[in-house]
Amino acid sequence: MEHHDRDDVVSSSFVKVLPDGHVDLNDLEEQLAAQTKRCLVSLMHANNEIGNLLDIYKAGEICKKYNAIFHSDTVQTVGHYKIDLRSKPVHFATGAGHKFHGPKGVGILYINDNIKVRPMIHGGGQERNMRAGTENTYGIVGFAKALELADAGMEQDSAYIQSLKTYMIEQLQQQISGVQFNGDYNGRSLYTVLNVSFPKTERSEMILFNLDMQGICVSGGSACSSGADVGSHVIRAINNNPNLVPVRFSFCKHNTKEEVDDVIRKLKDLL
Amino acid sequence: MEHHDRDDVVSSSFVKVLPDGHVDLNDLEEQLAAQTKRCLVSLMHANNEIGNLLDIYKAGEICKKYNAIFHSDTVQTVGHYKIDLRSKPVHFATGAGHKFHGPKGVGILYINDNIKVRPMIHGGGQERNMRAGTENTYGIVGFAKALELADAGMEQDSAYIQSLKTYMIEQLQQQISGVQFNGDYNGRSLYTVLNVSFPKTERSEMILFNLDMQGICVSGGSACSSGADVGSHVIRAINNNPNLVPVRFSFCKHNTKEEVDDVIRKLKDLL
Repeated sequence: MEHHDRDDVVSSSFVKVLPDGHVDLNDLEEQLAAQTKRCLVSLMHANNEIGNLLDIYKAGEICKKYNAIFHSDTVQTVGHYKIDLRSKPVHFATGAGHKFHGPKGVGILYINDNIKVRPMIHGGGQERNMRAGTENTYGIVGFAKALELADAGMEQDSAYIQSLKTYMIEQLQQQISGVQFNGDYNGRSLYTVLNVSFPKTERSEMILFNLDMQGICVSGGSACSSGADVGSHVIRAINNNPNLVPVRFSFCKHNTKEEVDDVIRKLKDLL
Repeated sequence: MEHHDRDDVVSSSFVKVLPDGHVDLNDLEEQLAAQTKRCLVSLMHANNEIGNLLDIYKAGEICKKYNAIFHSDTVQTVGHYKIDLRSKPVHFATGAGHKFHGPKGVGILYINDNIKVRPMIHGGGQERNMRAGTENTYGIVGFAKALELADAGMEQDSAYIQSLKTYMIEQLQQQISGVQFNGDYNGRSLYTVLNVSFPKTERSEMILFNLDMQGICVSGGSACSSGADVGSHVIRAINNNPNLVPVRFSFCKHNTKEEVDDVIRKLKDLL
């Protein structure tokens, strides 16, 4: 959350997080009520590491009540959930093609008609003077097509992917002792993400590396910081238990129940 | 040219332009000599509208003498000319894939090892923490391949394209009365660009539109501001003659002498 303490100084503060990883909307409201300057609130629609889903409309209503501008990082949800931006108080939303089988390196920024922003990249008049530079045309076309396909298959695909996630939860609980799940995994959560903690042992500490060797692509945190092995700031914020090793599994419509079985088998071998 | 008048204020001034469209390097040196703060100098390697080529190494040496940081927009020249960045005093250079038959929407920024810059786009650790965001992988691969091909064919292609430009100059001079050329078209100039001025008549005022209708793609100024019919600021800066209509022709290795003949024929019909 950003607000102006002086006319020319921007300060920021963090909204509290509940133990299940959800954003504390009461804290958001209290902080907004205490501000005298107009605020910008930025909250992820879904957390990319633990999958928790924000009630974006409720958050938007709170922001509206205090005349705050509301930005939501909807990168995890565009193409996976219907998002109503027409009648709901969301000022900014974002999407990335590669999150729904579209091309990498292309995204969208939705800006509500009521908001005026100044461009960060000046020069040419492209994109209505908002972002100078020759456009990535094939990326834009690919993004639009992928979103169209994601939208058309959303109902069926989401039910199928949720069934894979549910199946994996069951199998892990049955077959791996001491396993825990991070975030609101059984509640308001992405159907595409499952964040699992394994008891720390010499073997589990090497689990990311060993799963990778076995052809299983998982991560310990965000893919954006892969390579930088500093642990997950998300897991630290909700459950800072040094005796657990968190692993993020992701699912898509191309995955199968047999692949889940295969992962469980390999996990049993490795742990 | 940008310099700091106060610690927290950045001011800018323009370097003079000579009547032939070249940057006045004496003026650059005088301005740099008069500055007490460190300056950033930004000069295009080649002007995209009239084709004039800057002596980038000479400009770099002047900047070096006055400890200025030198940025050059090399978008028109990367893939068309050999540019020595290893031993020459150029701090920043840029390239865009679509300028040498590579993909649109992908480019490079070269930053000299001696320069430290802060990122404009924060977030993920991509591109060595310099630009957050999932990379446009296929664009990057396409850029690299296109540059490799451009480099391999540079000697042959540049001679061929120059011959097309020279042929077009000759044909225009022979067949269109009152034609003029903008910039140093016969001297230090891109072999890919020819900027022509036609005497203003009722017919020539519609020339861009009519050439477009005939399948000939040309522009009156920069493609970045196409659609915004405000005239060319480049032509205004060197030759503000309201009785002339400037048209920019571009050539590539896929063009032919027959196409030049066809354009000349259509120009004669239209004018």
